[in-house]
Amino acid sequence: MAISIAIDSHGGDQGVSVTVPAALSALAANPDLSIILVGQQDLLDAELVNHSNNYPDRLSIQHASQIVGMDESPALALRGKKDSSMRVAINLVKEGKAGACISAGNTGALMATARFVLKTLSGIKRPAIVTAIPTMFGHVHFLDLGANVDSSAEVLQQFGVMGSILVQSIEKQDQPKVGLLNIGHEDVKGNETVKAADELLKNSPVNYVGFVEGDDIFTADLDVIACDGFVGNVSLKTMEGLAQMITSIMKEEFNRNFLTKLAGLVAMPVIKALRSRLDNRRYNGATLLGLRGTVIKSHGSADVYAYTKAIEEGYREVQHQVPEMIEKVLSTTDLTNSTKT
Amino acid sequence: MAISIAIDSHGGDQGVSVTVPAALSALAANPDLSIILVGQQDLLDAELVNHSNNYPDRLSIQHASQIVGMDESPALALRGKKDSSMRVAINLVKEGKAGACISAGNTGALMATARFVLKTLSGIKRPAIVTAIPTMFGHVHFLDLGANVDSSAEVLQQFGVMGSILVQSIEKQDQPKVGLLNIGHEDVKGNETVKAADELLKNSPVNYVGFVEGDDIFTADLDVIACDGFVGNVSLKTMEGLAQMITSIMKEEFNRNFLTKLAGLVAMPVIKALRSRLDNRRYNGATLLGLRGTVIKSHGSADVYAYTKAIEEGYREVQHQVPEMIEKVLSTTDLTNSTKT
Repeated sequence: MAISIAIDSHGGDQGVSVTVPAALSALAANPDLSIILVGQQDLLDAELVNHSNNYPDRLSIQHASQIVGMDESPALALRGKKDSSMRVAINLVKEGKAGACISAGNTGALMATARFVLKTLSGIKRPAIVTAIPTMFGHVHFLDLGANVDSSAEVLQQFGVMGSILVQSIEKQDQPKVGLLNIGHEDVKGNETVKAADELLKNSPVNYVGFVEGDDIFTADLDVIACDGFVGNVSLKTMEGLAQMITSIMKEEFNRNFLTKLAGLVAMPVIKALRSRLDNRRYNGATLLGLRGTVIKSHGSADVYAYTKAIEEGYREVQHQVPEMIEKVLSTTDLTNSTKT
Repeated sequence: MAISIAIDSHGGDQGVSVTVPAALSALAANPDLSIILVGQQDLLDAELVNHSNNYPDRLSIQHASQIVGMDESPALALRGKKDSSMRVAINLVKEGKAGACISAGNTGALMATARFVLKTLSGIKRPAIVTAIPTMFGHVHFLDLGANVDSSAEVLQQFGVMGSILVQSIEKQDQPKVGLLNIGHEDVKGNETVKAADELLKNSPVNYVGFVEGDDIFTADLDVIACDGFVGNVSLKTMEGLAQMITSIMKEEFNRNFLTKLAGLVAMPVIKALRSRLDNRRYNGATLLGLRGTVIKSHGSADVYAYTKAIEEGYREVQHQVPEMIEKVLSTTDLTNSTKT
């Protein structure tokens, strides 16, 4: 099945110097993929000169004159940048010319524009941001990562259901295990919202395992963890901060003196194996889930390897028709009054 | 200044086999400390036989017949266990016979009992649980860790103020830097509660630096971070889970084969230095802040070293009269209408 993906070439800290080589790398790995680079024609042409484009028939350029700044207000970007690379890339999804849009740009602007242009799926209250996180058992899909604060019980329920359908679709898992993030495993723990969401999820068409805690993200064998976007964002950034501190302390300790440097050399293969297992670049590409179309948010500081992973995440979700699967389940199940199937 | 501390000897996963040797170790290190071991006389006598008690004049036993279970409901413990080691230890603080109580028991029961027996300080809406967390700059005091969900803006403001006074008192820091945890640094980010708390903290008698994000816990030079207990608990447990996963993956990688084991031996001094810098046992002892008395919660799985640290945290807070300092500041400042001093 031929899949076309639109890339917001100017999104992210690096812009075309990352997005263009990543596009070429994704094209090399996926013969039925075609890519539309959206952005300023002259900048794209100049960047393409630096690479050998072996896929002229599968790579095209769609000119867009504007760029959304990384710190620009989402509302201003939406109103004032109608010819931005971000907006035009999303338009291509709306028009059916691309199956998915990838952007490393401003998350708020991307979510606002995607919601405005594509709209949410019928029955979905709020789209969520979801990504996979490496765990002791492989990985877990974690949502919402910051699109929604003060999520209601019904919204949390939908996050659990959408996450489950995502994993079912792209990983061909029959019964993904879904947990609801809380501050204890017992029924009496937490706030009224998670208690109500717990009841709703018990009666939803998902394999719901109940409340989970922050450490369970890594140490329990789960497929999906749902939570409010404020909590999910703090948890995700807590991971990033702790990982950054550990990396920095490791470097410091191995660079302390001649002997520790030598130890670092000897231990290098192990350190490399460790780093590769914890490398979250592999999981780059967060999905804006619940929209009428696939939109993938890459980390703003993604390198070529990480950005390629985001493109491939979009490819996989188009291939497995994730939005269509969510719509299909929602059209046949009344979540507000559902029973386990 | 002679300081007396009451220990809930049966609290925690290990009970007297940890609390008794930790008490002896704290007595050895602090000549003006005296300890009251609260618990079942026969069990305490039996445990003391295993150790040489060099401080008979500074160590006493207060019999208490009951034990609060680690999974017992706080309400049931409060109503039904009036002669528990936990309750009697807190009573000793109330009666002025001890300056602080240390417990590794059930957090919910400890908070409920401490609030019931000691009461909150005048003007304090909700007590918080606070602990120090190792960071790239030393450590930061982080609260609330789960005592309060759905904290109002006023409660978040009080967390910031209480945290600041705690750090001022025990670390002799003039202007501790206080941050409010959010999902972005900009004013427009977050929910209505943190936006309102941000305004209140800007007009509070603390060195408020504004919104901080999850990664700032480790990578920014802060002294206090305030947040709602749901968010703080998830963040703390996220750290615990990630640290556990990294430790386990390191062990796996270094044990993979003969060569990696050899590399592990060579790198051992570095790994030990690393482990010691990340060792959160050093920071064991979370304070129940905002009560009329000092109550310290040790991690349930604390070993003798960690439990000794919790006793010493209690010692330091009594020495620096933390509850009295909070009361003093609150009695001279109207937080609801305060201006920076």
